[in-house]
Amino acid sequence: MTVTTIEAGCGGGLTLMAGETLRLIDPLGGQSGDLMAFREGDITEWLSNGRTFDYGGTIYLTQGHTLFSNRSNPMLTITRDDVGCHDFLYAPCSPEMYRIQYGETGHSNCLENLAGALAHLGVEPHQVPTAFNFFMSARVGEDGRLTIAPAPSKAGDTVEFRAEMDLAIAISACSSPTCNGGALKPVQYEILGRA
Amino acid sequence: MTVTTIEAGCGGGLTLMAGETLRLIDPLGGQSGDLMAFREGDITEWLSNGRTFDYGGTIYLTQGHTLFSNRSNPMLTITRDDVGCHDFLYAPCSPEMYRIQYGETGHSNCLENLAGALAHLGVEPHQVPTAFNFFMSARVGEDGRLTIAPAPSKAGDTVEFRAEMDLAIAISACSSPTCNGGALKPVQYEILGRA
Repeated sequence: MTVTTIEAGCGGGLTLMAGETLRLIDPLGGQSGDLMAFREGDITEWLSNGRTFDYGGTIYLTQGHTLFSNRSNPMLTITRDDVGCHDFLYAPCSPEMYRIQYGETGHSNCLENLAGALAHLGVEPHQVPTAFNFFMSARVGEDGRLTIAPAPSKAGDTVEFRAEMDLAIAISACSSPTCNGGALKPVQYEILGRA
Repeated sequence: MTVTTIEAGCGGGLTLMAGETLRLIDPLGGQSGDLMAFREGDITEWLSNGRTFDYGGTIYLTQGHTLFSNRSNPMLTITRDDVGCHDFLYAPCSPEMYRIQYGETGHSNCLENLAGALAHLGVEPHQVPTAFNFFMSARVGEDGRLTIAPAPSKAGDTVEFRAEMDLAIAISACSSPTCNGGALKPVQYEILGRA
């Protein structure tokens, strides 16, 4: 199988057909990423955190959980998970987020990476909803407060998703220093089960 | 001030100008509702749970918190809150949700109520994202599991939002038996500060 590397601070796009499996890999450890999916050929259907929380009954998603679309259709099922720590609460980091929270401009960011990987389908940045943030540690306290810690993934850890429909997928190697231990690193993927 | 009633299982729409305040009222107690907002005149900008969680640092929003758009702009600030229990995790109840979770068809639902109240602006149901569910009790356990309880609001309780930009707003009196103690009831609103 071909392993594709998405360089630190960058994004990439792929098509995943129903029944195929997408394996996401943290090659160096301590690196999170964003995953967004649209229905192949129909950008009015996309991954929805609100639907997924409702049907799964949990905000912490791991092996055995299915990610649903805004139309309540299954999109991806997590079939293997070495890490068991992901986030589906935070919107992708964006130029506005780095400006508002860090006073920085020109920072690489997941929103532009995801939108760029889907632009050929007609997806604009404002249409990229809250993404599935793999290997991202965002925990909710009893009082509802959110705490972010560096990605807990170790070198070589993977999470795998089986496609429940044909999908256009975008992946971003997250650029947030907070989520990635201060050092931006690549992520990798491979597609399993392709004929 | 004119108090408008949204009947049980129904929805309604209004325009709220920057600086005006929307007061939501539970007239009978124990009734939750859904609130969705788009920028007036631009339906590419809408309320985003992921942006709001990020900038607020919490999933439980109450007085003093601001709700942000997908473009990271402030839309609404909660200026008064008698209840202090709302949800921004669950997508609006929908025909698909009632079919999947309850095996019911033809159930009134927040998704169609919200979309109907915004249809004249060109908003289609699939474009209605996760709404702000006022007076809805959805709590996250330490393990991430979600628990829904009947709305804790008492008769006459209110929550107030100041508009930070001109907004097209939709409100739905929620149709979920689980969220409303088994009895569907109306919600009310009034607009404060209109010249």
